[in-house]
Amino acid sequence: MSKKVAVILSGCGVYDGAEIHESVITLLRLDQRGAQVQCFAPNIAQLHVINHLTGEEMPESRNVLVESARIARGDVKDLREAKAEDFDALIVPGGFGSAKNLSNFAVEGAGCTVQPEVLALTEAFAEAGKPVGLMCISPALAAKIYGPGVNCTIGTDADTAAAVTKMGGNHEECLVTDIVEDTARKLVSTPAYMLARNISEAASGINKLVDRVLELTHENDA
Amino acid sequence: MSKKVAVILSGCGVYDGAEIHESVITLLRLDQRGAQVQCFAPNIAQLHVINHLTGEEMPESRNVLVESARIARGDVKDLREAKAEDFDALIVPGGFGSAKNLSNFAVEGAGCTVQPEVLALTEAFAEAGKPVGLMCISPALAAKIYGPGVNCTIGTDADTAAAVTKMGGNHEECLVTDIVEDTARKLVSTPAYMLARNISEAASGINKLVDRVLELTHENDA
Repeated sequence: MSKKVAVILSGCGVYDGAEIHESVITLLRLDQRGAQVQCFAPNIAQLHVINHLTGEEMPESRNVLVESARIARGDVKDLREAKAEDFDALIVPGGFGSAKNLSNFAVEGAGCTVQPEVLALTEAFAEAGKPVGLMCISPALAAKIYGPGVNCTIGTDADTAAAVTKMGGNHEECLVTDIVEDTARKLVSTPAYMLARNISEAASGINKLVDRVLELTHENDA
Repeated sequence: MSKKVAVILSGCGVYDGAEIHESVITLLRLDQRGAQVQCFAPNIAQLHVINHLTGEEMPESRNVLVESARIARGDVKDLREAKAEDFDALIVPGGFGSAKNLSNFAVEGAGCTVQPEVLALTEAFAEAGKPVGLMCISPALAAKIYGPGVNCTIGTDADTAAAVTKMGGNHEECLVTDIVEDTARKLVSTPAYMLARNISEAASGINKLVDRVLELTHENDA
């Protein structure tokens, strides 16, 4: 039986949306492993639009769902339509979109809140004991989803790790090529572009995360 | 010696720019094979901005170079700065951006012209005998770059193949998993999303194209 995996995108571009390399590598690995994938994104305005050439904010507005459709070649659904019961696992790539659109971590740090639809869906996967993969900056949301004591990694960045700890998370340092797993919670995380110096390094950890998330779905087979 | 490869992007999104999966798979394979990569894009307005969720045109303007920077994580240069002498090979991913921004093939078909900076750079690679890889719809430009008789593929689409033939190209049908090579001209092409039904299929032909383009650079080693 092919496994069904939901992927939450947060726009299209590392500085204001989903990190594109991380998203595409995730979709490629899932497809190569025979998983059925459905992308979702919240139907909300982006916090910012950033000129990715200059790093400066642009005076315009873009929609997270509409821009996520670029990565998904149009095949993306409103996050409100996502139900944990329809899927075996969930993966959330990184990029600032995770900290700007899926939550307000980029602004509020440890005092952040998770976007309500994102929180409801991720909590539903957690409560159902279904595996979740969080990469790059997305594990910053782990303590908000799973509560105190959750094991996760954002790599080695001291400030971000301190924020994770402050929220109640148990941060573990991790190589870009590796993953951290919270066995009880079936949560897998990897640093990706929090540490990667090139796309191959990012792919090494992401592929490991995808493979482990798919392995964990089999623990839920009857 | 690590090979230097220029990649021309045409925006960020299949319907008005560079096809994102094709671009990322190209960058990943090049990096995994040890190539040094520099992305370029023309500093011009996109022909259209398309809502990738609905397929409809959006009433706004975006710049090809600025949007390409999303795929390149900021590391993209104005195409005017690109010199064939600085590189061993050139690769152009597909997406409608190739037919809307790098040329006007989407509007003019066989009567199209190639954007002047794109034409100058691709002709310089051709004249220098340096290998070039064109994927998806980009091989529609081959006859404009190399002149009549060039062997290339856009897969099996009859209308596009007829346009290639009308421009003087020698179109060869090709599986999504395979490549067509014009040995004399060192031009490699693959159908990618002109035929691919999923991202793994696209990757199979793209990886073969990247590998062959890198192999061909060794023929130019002293």
